[in-house]
Amino acid sequence: MLSPKIAILGGGQLGQMLIQSAIDFNATIFVLDPDADAPCKDISHQFMVGDLTDYNTVYNFGKEADVITIEIENVNTQALDQLQKEGKKVFPQPNVIRTIQDKRTQKQFFADHNVPTSEFVLTESRADLDKHIGFLPAVHKLGRAGYDGRGIAKINSTEDISKGFDQPSVLEKLVDIEKEISVLIARNEKGAVSVFPVVEMVFHPANNMLDYLISPVVLPAGIERLAQEIATNIIEKLEMVGLLAVEMFLTTSGNLLVNELAPRPHNSGHHTIKANATSQYEQHLRAILGLPFGSTATIIPSAMINLLGEPGYNGIARFTGLDDALQTEGVNIHLYGKKFTKPHRKMGHITIVDTDRSQLLEKLRFVKGQLKVVA
Amino acid sequence: MLSPKIAILGGGQLGQMLIQSAIDFNATIFVLDPDADAPCKDISHQFMVGDLTDYNTVYNFGKEADVITIEIENVNTQALDQLQKEGKKVFPQPNVIRTIQDKRTQKQFFADHNVPTSEFVLTESRADLDKHIGFLPAVHKLGRAGYDGRGIAKINSTEDISKGFDQPSVLEKLVDIEKEISVLIARNEKGAVSVFPVVEMVFHPANNMLDYLISPVVLPAGIERLAQEIATNIIEKLEMVGLLAVEMFLTTSGNLLVNELAPRPHNSGHHTIKANATSQYEQHLRAILGLPFGSTATIIPSAMINLLGEPGYNGIARFTGLDDALQTEGVNIHLYGKKFTKPHRKMGHITIVDTDRSQLLEKLRFVKGQLKVVA
Repeated sequence: MLSPKIAILGGGQLGQMLIQSAIDFNATIFVLDPDADAPCKDISHQFMVGDLTDYNTVYNFGKEADVITIEIENVNTQALDQLQKEGKKVFPQPNVIRTIQDKRTQKQFFADHNVPTSEFVLTESRADLDKHIGFLPAVHKLGRAGYDGRGIAKINSTEDISKGFDQPSVLEKLVDIEKEISVLIARNEKGAVSVFPVVEMVFHPANNMLDYLISPVVLPAGIERLAQEIATNIIEKLEMVGLLAVEMFLTTSGNLLVNELAPRPHNSGHHTIKANATSQYEQHLRAILGLPFGSTATIIPSAMINLLGEPGYNGIARFTGLDDALQTEGVNIHLYGKKFTKPHRKMGHITIVDTDRSQLLEKLRFVKGQLKVVA
Repeated sequence: MLSPKIAILGGGQLGQMLIQSAIDFNATIFVLDPDADAPCKDISHQFMVGDLTDYNTVYNFGKEADVITIEIENVNTQALDQLQKEGKKVFPQPNVIRTIQDKRTQKQFFADHNVPTSEFVLTESRADLDKHIGFLPAVHKLGRAGYDGRGIAKINSTEDISKGFDQPSVLEKLVDIEKEISVLIARNEKGAVSVFPVVEMVFHPANNMLDYLISPVVLPAGIERLAQEIATNIIEKLEMVGLLAVEMFLTTSGNLLVNELAPRPHNSGHHTIKANATSQYEQHLRAILGLPFGSTATIIPSAMINLLGEPGYNGIARFTGLDDALQTEGVNIHLYGKKFTKPHRKMGHITIVDTDRSQLLEKLRFVKGQLKVVA
């Protein structure tokens, strides 16, 4: 479908980059976000302020579109059910969003479909943790509404139980991680699947947010193929239409374990805008518009750094070291239209491309050292 | 400068792609275009319908911006003079636009600055052509307002004089062309210059519009460097700030002759979005915002095809052969939001990337054969 009317639930940076790509398909874009100052507010054809979890708001918002999609999982899926019932294309499908938006049902889905994942137990309250002392050390994750390091607590021993959550959560056995990787994969209504080369994600030890990413990843023989097969199995079992990010651990013992899913364009795919033949945003659009998939081939090695608000700064964002960063060969900047910075807020990202991987890592260290978001 | 207010004169596809890139710099974009249905109408922060050649319209439009730029040359430069006088950044500068927007002053600029170009004479009326019979065969070009094959007439002999223009024009001696090439080059306020790898443009014999483009071009030794030096000389002599496209002929006798200039992002640079480390749109923005230049390196060979309205079709645009085109490896489509097609109207373009040049040419022929814009 060309010239589609696309309704996007969520108006953050993922929505922004989706819009930048959707312009190429003559799309008319409606955006719904609770924040009147969201990144998409001025670049969509119609921007609505409203609660993404409210039935009537979501239903009325989606009614005028041809295709409804998301850039955040925490949305009212009952309204999406109704829109789907009325013949709208809702991709990813509401039942897929439901499975993924709760980390408990997500984990259960892995268990039910032979998807390798860390051992886990479901907990209903903080007190439940006392029953699983033998399971520690583990990671406690809130079922709903946790992301980007929120709603996650490391429980090493009984002393940490006070950090656990007193709401329905999942306790996941801690695994020894060699690398964290991400597999982006897309599927369309005909069941065709298209998978991207695997990328390595390096997380910041303090804030648990993505620190930088390298594409393509260097992995032991056979592991990349296996990761792609696992992702293929997941998207096929979900029967999902759209782009899915599958985050995995490669353990020190050489096993792949699926960590989490995100049924939408993902932070680990920003580099694809420049470094792959087709970007994750375009691939998602091709999937939900019923167009053939584009090539996912890496055209050049790349690295991606999130530009996070420096700790200790709150206020109107300023960038220091910008010139040094921008004059580094192969650097592109993407800002998210956020006026105010706060500690660890995602303000933008930098992509670096270089045919030489060691040069790439050197530039990455240089740019990370130079460029800061302050106030 | 980040988070700039940029006013763009012209709201066509070049403006559209400039906006797609400007979003990454947190830009607020104002657009002025005479067509209420122009491609930029829904993707700019503020879209104004008005006459680009009217003093008051242009002056009032530019007043609220930090930086004023163009995506078409035929604008009121007196209003831009005034805005510049009042301290606005106007890039390219009004005097540069004036030199280039009239093909006569452009040619005279070449003559005055030792820029190699075909021999020419200025004509004031059609009758003047009778004085230059010995100069034929030649090409007659209207001084003002001719582009994309309009305002150009081939005068082979006295029999063709009736096709000439009865307004101020330039008569250029016909040269034997081996290849047509384009050099994109940018310069900033500090005088730094950044040049892109040279591309080959292949024109359609019937309608004189760009048929397809290949990057990088294959040229005899030394010619690419020479072309880049000629372009550098031009942008430095113009003291222009912004992106400049320099179209050149490589003659059958091996000489380079400058054909025409365009002081803005250009049709011959669309491929840079995917195929170069920095796109022409981003480079233009970096130039006019006073940011360091990005690398112009080719990251993968590419071809670009304009999607033109098929002759014989007028009405709401439809695309045939779209699936065959889109499922070809390495193909991206860019549509320009134009609802109605007419013969030769630029409706969009296709970029193809492939590491293997012969594969690239094969895909190019296939996609050109398949994909048509009809009504």
